[in-house]
Amino acid sequence: MMKNFFDGLYGTMAMAEVFSPEAQVEAMLEFEAALARAQARTGVIPNTAAESIAAQCRVEFFDVPDIFRQTAIAGTPVIPLVRRLTEIVRGEARKYVHWAATSQDVMDTALVLQLRRGLPLLLADLLTLGDRCAGLAKAHRRTLMPGRTLLQQAVPIPFGLKAARWLSMVGRLIFELRGKQDKALRLQFGGAAGTLAALGAKGMAVTDALAQELRLAAPELPWHTERDRLALLISALGVIAGAMTKIAQDIVLLKQIEVGEVTEAGGEDKGTSSAMPQKENALEAILARASARLAIHEVPLVLAAMEQEHERAAGAWQSEGPAIPAAVCYTAGAVAHVKNALLDLEVNGPKMRENLERDGGLLMAEALLIALAERVGKPKARTMIKAVVKQVRTGHRPLSQAAAESPVIAAVLTRPEIVSALNPENTLGSSDIFIDRALAGYEADSAVIRPDPGSAEDLPGLLPGSIR
Amino acid sequence: MMKNFFDGLYGTMAMAEVFSPEAQVEAMLEFEAALARAQARTGVIPNTAAESIAAQCRVEFFDVPDIFRQTAIAGTPVIPLVRRLTEIVRGEARKYVHWAATSQDVMDTALVLQLRRGLPLLLADLLTLGDRCAGLAKAHRRTLMPGRTLLQQAVPIPFGLKAARWLSMVGRLIFELRGKQDKALRLQFGGAAGTLAALGAKGMAVTDALAQELRLAAPELPWHTERDRLALLISALGVIAGAMTKIAQDIVLLKQIEVGEVTEAGGEDKGTSSAMPQKENALEAILARASARLAIHEVPLVLAAMEQEHERAAGAWQSEGPAIPAAVCYTAGAVAHVKNALLDLEVNGPKMRENLERDGGLLMAEALLIALAERVGKPKARTMIKAVVKQVRTGHRPLSQAAAESPVIAAVLTRPEIVSALNPENTLGSSDIFIDRALAGYEADSAVIRPDPGSAEDLPGLLPGSIR
Amino acid sequence: MMKNFFDGLYGTMAMAEVFSPEAQVEAMLEFEAALARAQARTGVIPNTAAESIAAQCRVEFFDVPDIFRQTAIAGTPVIPLVRRLTEIVRGEARKYVHWAATSQDVMDTALVLQLRRGLPLLLADLLTLGDRCAGLAKAHRRTLMPGRTLLQQAVPIPFGLKAARWLSMVGRLIFELRGKQDKALRLQFGGAAGTLAALGAKGMAVTDALAQELRLAAPELPWHTERDRLALLISALGVIAGAMTKIAQDIVLLKQIEVGEVTEAGGEDKGTSSAMPQKENALEAILARASARLAIHEVPLVLAAMEQEHERAAGAWQSEGPAIPAAVCYTAGAVAHVKNALLDLEVNGPKMRENLERDGGLLMAEALLIALAERVGKPKARTMIKAVVKQVRTGHRPLSQAAAESPVIAAVLTRPEIVSALNPENTLGSSDIFIDRALAGYEADSAVIRPDPGSAEDLPGLLPGSIR
Amino acid sequence: MMKNFFDGLYGTMAMAEVFSPEAQVEAMLEFEAALARAQARTGVIPNTAAESIAAQCRVEFFDVPDIFRQTAIAGTPVIPLVRRLTEIVRGEARKYVHWAATSQDVMDTALVLQLRRGLPLLLADLLTLGDRCAGLAKAHRRTLMPGRTLLQQAVPIPFGLKAARWLSMVGRLIFELRGKQDKALRLQFGGAAGTLAALGAKGMAVTDALAQELRLAAPELPWHTERDRLALLISALGVIAGAMTKIAQDIVLLKQIEVGEVTEAGGEDKGTSSAMPQKENALEAILARASARLAIHEVPLVLAAMEQEHERAAGAWQSEGPAIPAAVCYTAGAVAHVKNALLDLEVNGPKMRENLERDGGLLMAEALLIALAERVGKPKARTMIKAVVKQVRTGHRPLSQAAAESPVIAAVLTRPEIVSALNPENTLGSSDIFIDRALAGYEADSAVIRPDPGSAEDLPGLLPGSIR
Repeated sequence: MMKNFFDGLYGTMAMAEVFSPEAQVEAMLEFEAALARAQARTGVIPNTAAESIAAQCRVEFFDVPDIFRQTAIAGTPVIPLVRRLTEIVRGEARKYVHWAATSQDVMDTALVLQLRRGLPLLLADLLTLGDRCAGLAKAHRRTLMPGRTLLQQAVPIPFGLKAARWLSMVGRLIFELRGKQDKALRLQFGGAAGTLAALGAKGMAVTDALAQELRLAAPELPWHTERDRLALLISALGVIAGAMTKIAQDIVLLKQIEVGEVTEAGGEDKGTSSAMPQKENALEAILARASARLAIHEVPLVLAAMEQEHERAAGAWQSEGPAIPAAVCYTAGAVAHVKNALLDLEVNGPKMRENLERDGGLLMAEALLIALAERVGKPKARTMIKAVVKQVRTGHRPLSQAAAESPVIAAVLTRPEIVSALNPENTLGSSDIFIDRALAGYEADSAVIRPDPGSAEDLPGLLPGSIR
Repeated sequence: MMKNFFDGLYGTMAMAEVFSPEAQVEAMLEFEAALARAQARTGVIPNTAAESIAAQCRVEFFDVPDIFRQTAIAGTPVIPLVRRLTEIVRGEARKYVHWAATSQDVMDTALVLQLRRGLPLLLADLLTLGDRCAGLAKAHRRTLMPGRTLLQQAVPIPFGLKAARWLSMVGRLIFELRGKQDKALRLQFGGAAGTLAALGAKGMAVTDALAQELRLAAPELPWHTERDRLALLISALGVIAGAMTKIAQDIVLLKQIEVGEVTEAGGEDKGTSSAMPQKENALEAILARASARLAIHEVPLVLAAMEQEHERAAGAWQSEGPAIPAAVCYTAGAVAHVKNALLDLEVNGPKMRENLERDGGLLMAEALLIALAERVGKPKARTMIKAVVKQVRTGHRPLSQAAAESPVIAAVLTRPEIVSALNPENTLGSSDIFIDRALAGYEADSAVIRPDPGSAEDLPGLLPGSIR
Repeated sequence: MMKNFFDGLYGTMAMAEVFSPEAQVEAMLEFEAALARAQARTGVIPNTAAESIAAQCRVEFFDVPDIFRQTAIAGTPVIPLVRRLTEIVRGEARKYVHWAATSQDVMDTALVLQLRRGLPLLLADLLTLGDRCAGLAKAHRRTLMPGRTLLQQAVPIPFGLKAARWLSMVGRLIFELRGKQDKALRLQFGGAAGTLAALGAKGMAVTDALAQELRLAAPELPWHTERDRLALLISALGVIAGAMTKIAQDIVLLKQIEVGEVTEAGGEDKGTSSAMPQKENALEAILARASARLAIHEVPLVLAAMEQEHERAAGAWQSEGPAIPAAVCYTAGAVAHVKNALLDLEVNGPKMRENLERDGGLLMAEALLIALAERVGKPKARTMIKAVVKQVRTGHRPLSQAAAESPVIAAVLTRPEIVSALNPENTLGSSDIFIDRALAGYEADSAVIRPDPGSAEDLPGLLPGSIR
Repeated sequence: MMKNFFDGLYGTMAMAEVFSPEAQVEAMLEFEAALARAQARTGVIPNTAAESIAAQCRVEFFDVPDIFRQTAIAGTPVIPLVRRLTEIVRGEARKYVHWAATSQDVMDTALVLQLRRGLPLLLADLLTLGDRCAGLAKAHRRTLMPGRTLLQQAVPIPFGLKAARWLSMVGRLIFELRGKQDKALRLQFGGAAGTLAALGAKGMAVTDALAQELRLAAPELPWHTERDRLALLISALGVIAGAMTKIAQDIVLLKQIEVGEVTEAGGEDKGTSSAMPQKENALEAILARASARLAIHEVPLVLAAMEQEHERAAGAWQSEGPAIPAAVCYTAGAVAHVKNALLDLEVNGPKMRENLERDGGLLMAEALLIALAERVGKPKARTMIKAVVKQVRTGHRPLSQAAAESPVIAAVLTRPEIVSALNPENTLGSSDIFIDRALAGYEADSAVIRPDPGSAEDLPGLLPGSIR
């Protein structure tokens, strides 16, 4: 169910489904059905009542558009939903609909159920993305390119190291998100003001049964106005979105005509222009940047919304309503777009090599400086090298030539030493080790969401787990 | 066309319409039709071609859901839209579809057309809201209540002055929004990279004709990457949303059971609770606070999106796509909710008067201090009054009694002087003048959008106007 | 060293110290000294050189104001600092100053060292604050007060449960911050563009030695442009600040004259007014709210700053410079102010009890509803209770009287049953269990920073720890 | 008075002065002196008292560090300041210090006085910056370069047009800021809760006299909790900062080694690297981007702070304290850095021309498309050109050659027509007109702050002006 141009551009269709009105109603009904069953199991309401209620908790029995029309009047979808549910439940059972619960219990738990459906989609995309980075890191250990600082050529690096840095970040964030998900996805059940007063002595028994019905962890105590776990989860999404901007921007910059080191090989229409026939835009990376900005901007809203009055907030909680789904959907969009960009990525090794020669090969200046400095110390070497740099810049000779012809340098280094110092292959430093460590770190981090080979499930379940 | 629970809760249905996918396609087609006509008028394309093109520019000829499915691939709705338009235009005319324009011309101008439809709705609500504040200010010049600073009772104020302060803000913001609207709502037309190269020497002629066709002001030059006017408009919306939080929060606080000075008289369901039968929540004010927070958080996104690369941004511009409609819709929601809250507002004068006596009437302490200070100077008066305040707080006697019984005060003021100093009616200061000035200021400010009595239009048109 | 009115108001003096220019220079010098020593240990530079360099790395040898004057020209303090250090190091050693390092290595690692000094201060305040909440939770298990939802009275709760909810949040955030600190506080060392090329094969050996010298964990690979760990740390601070707003707002609202349930017992001047002698403001809570807002607004900046170009960002990284210290200082301010507010807090039990009777005791309506619903079902009970509520609101009789006199209710419940249903003591539900669980949860969570009884240290050290 | 590395890096020294603690104390004393004089003129206090008070209102009589130490306790600098002032005023006059004013009157008006000093500095820098853009626009009408959309080469544009676009934005923002400044800079004077009760019937007379003394406009009514004018001013600063990011990013991108179209000609140290001798970074542009991000992030804080409770806010107002000076200082930094970057800018025309040939000159494809489309219609032309583009990309022949050799194209266009279509000089479209219009618009907009040639003042004064 698609709602506007933006769902598919800045999010993913699958995530838009998870947060559709139908899905929200479905999740709310899941709560009401589980509540009835849990209360039957604990002797709060009759078994038959629970069965009757649960039988009606099916989204197809509800006119979703009508519910949200009434929502605009009631201020919450729970009131029209419960009213309708009460209407369609027959006989005595009607008395027990929504027993002892409050609107926020339904809304918050429904959100948690939706997050439980949605976050694994996001994690799965992160995994594909990470695996692709790992592949790039391994494949391009010797694909030399200019490292760039402050957008100027600095020293040579292997493209594999750039991919390894992306990779290490992605691994850490998979681990982080999985952890935050485990902490945040838990039942909210507190009744009118968080005491479960309406259940007398049976509050905990119902809570535990309800958590079991929903296969959710129960919290130590209701969290209606303590939103820290949710805020940390959304912050983690913001950081993931931030990580996507890093990768996406690198791709966009590398794809500039004047740099030309990567291509995002799109299909037919992808990245074309309505005016210019030659255009091949890094469309996925561009959309990733847009989606990620949108995701990040939900974070301060959710943090500011932690200022919740007393036992239910008068505005702040309500502002989470659109903000949290938006944060998830936009982050999903950012991740999916970067994933696509990387899957489509073609690395232009020869062009990278060619770019090392741009600017007279001056990005080898640090290497020459180090070679000189080992003999004459850094301050003196710096002065020597500055003179040569000037010759390159003004005389339009390459560094190799300028260095070879410099009597000052010749007084310190032999010709083979100069040649060796200026060979980019000799300046990879610890790149290989770093790549290895990034690969190992990623493997460890991403293990938390990799399917157990012996298991039937695709992704490790999100079952209760421990209280903390 | 309603999309989720949130459209009606945090926005208004009318504004959701304006920014629906159908409305966006319609606005894009309006551009394409006007472009064809303008190019015919200036001899760029044949008249018959323009007629054929314009005839097909009707939203009912387009499968909107299909267009946005393709949007997710092409990265912009313009590509599938123009392709479809080209398909349905017959014969020679087909050659001239979307002539010399670029995607951003269509997208930006369509946004401007949508804003032109939407902003007057928002202004109209602001006017109703302001008029209601004016009514409250006039009606409650003598309705005394505790003024409160840092959420403590301070000195008495008339409720009319509080309403007057709201009023002055609303008036200024109507004036501001109207001005920003006039500046921001202008044609975007620059072609591939802002030179209108494809039109050769006819660039300006087509621009002017196109602006006329769309009844939009033409800009001095294309503004594809210079988004200051749009950013100022969205900022003004953010300030309006901020103003709404001020009013809404006052209402929510005044409506607390323990304060009880106003009621938001809702209908049936409005503001009720699914658990607690006695609850009467300030629902409109609460939703206003939520909507306003959501609106405000779009502002930094739009400001950050001003960082647009070269002649078209690779991510920042795209992030405006969902952000600008969201800013307008959420602001509209905040304004509508505050309007409703104020229209429903019942002012409880007796309760306000009663609250003046809470805390032993200590909010008259400044008045007594001033009376004393006029005789003995502020430092000495302060010491005297502090002692009396202490007696009130610890002895649980009202200030009137404690003051009357204080020999220290009796040495300075006569009993009638004390009684007079402690009479809230005597401490209104310049309130009346302030209320008058607020009313006058509002009348002047809001005149910019009031319908001319002799005119047929409901709101002053948004026609071209001058270049600046 | 205090810089403006704001350091002491919105932050703490101690944290302002940690992020003073002197402290920053000191941390940068700590890096340079450790670098020299590590390179000596690994045979990269002579031992004597390292000793000479380290001997000069003392802040008192540097004219800090002069360094930052030059910073404004050089764009980074590292250039003038290293130049000055090179000047004062004598002889051969001069050649080895800042060997193989780049500015960002110094800046980032110095920041980490400052964070290592600062975060324990914040954690210590959180612990005091949490311990105080625990005390309040235990002491006020039976101090009944109105629970309030949407700022309306809802049902009774014990104040101890409110404190327990604060407590559970504080505990979780101590645990979270400690974890994020362990992850984020690690050496940055990558050389010019993250390959450590200048160190040839000795990159890892120097890295490990340098980490040891600084007692920091070494990262798997340099993180110059991968800021996720830092961003997660700052996000955690934002969530902590958000948590502080929850507590602070509760206090401010409870302290309203019309509510009067708590007092922030300040000293002399604290919370007084320059105009109104009776004012006793909840100053600490107010300042906490201000500080927390300031802290939260740094988070999106740091998230947006993750978009770092290639191997060093051209603007985004630089924007972290003031943002990260501000995030820490403002969060520290928010925590310290809430700590002070809670330490000064006086709970007015009798007033809480009195407020239960406000509004005719209507907050017992849910309890009566439940008692009725158990007999006649919720829909019917709801209708019955609505009628009684109306009588209370319009007839100004308390609920107890209206219920007792209602023939409809008398037909369902006996008088003792009504009395029992309306007794707030009977509606605590699971409060006690929740309080116990919050206390246990806090104890477990806060153990991560509690001093080991057998240890000499005040707070567990922040020593290297494992790679992850 | 410089406080940390950041004042000079992200702001300007001059603006840091304006918002130093000393300057704030000075501004507060200016208010207190003017208040005494205004009250003497209106007969509220004796003339001699006013003279005595005003005589002591000199910052050198105050121990500024001590005042802010006390501020941390009192919660506002006004309490220790007034106490100290009361101490040093002798005799009877002491009674009349701070008469009828409240802390917020002092704080808000002092802020306005500081803004009055600071904003003209910012406007002056904007004017220099704008004048430089005007110079560039005029000088580079024929300096052709690749226009770039989505960071890909699009069609040729003159560099002068890019500068003209920057220019038009700068002009509009000068005009906007000047207007917002006129609206926002006005006296705040309301007494305890905005009624001026303590002045009885003399409230307006004192207000007017006070406004005159301070040469400030008086507001229609106090604005202690109605912060819209301030919020609009700060938003305008945010938009200015956003505009700076546009220009700065263009410079950074154009300066990439691989693009090389501009240089930021710094001095000695400027933009060098501590590791790489060849580096010449676009330091000013980089710092501008960082400063602007910092400025923008203050905007949502100020908007959110509009939610001010009743007659004085309990947290939101206080958060403005550091946020507003930060917004001004960081915006000043962003503007100053862009100004410097532009003043230092060297435009490399030959390199721009050379870059037109990069990518086989494919950025002329649209021009060729148009030439073909005029004969065969756009759809057919598009197909023809796509084939040629493919040849250029795969065959590594320039577009000119591929087009010349294409029999399909030869069937439509003659060789001279092809040559003409591919000549960048022929594709400037309306560039010249746009440049002229930008120059004219800027001249008109910036006139609001240009010194009147016959006047002695440097910048038009910020004197009272009309009420609106």
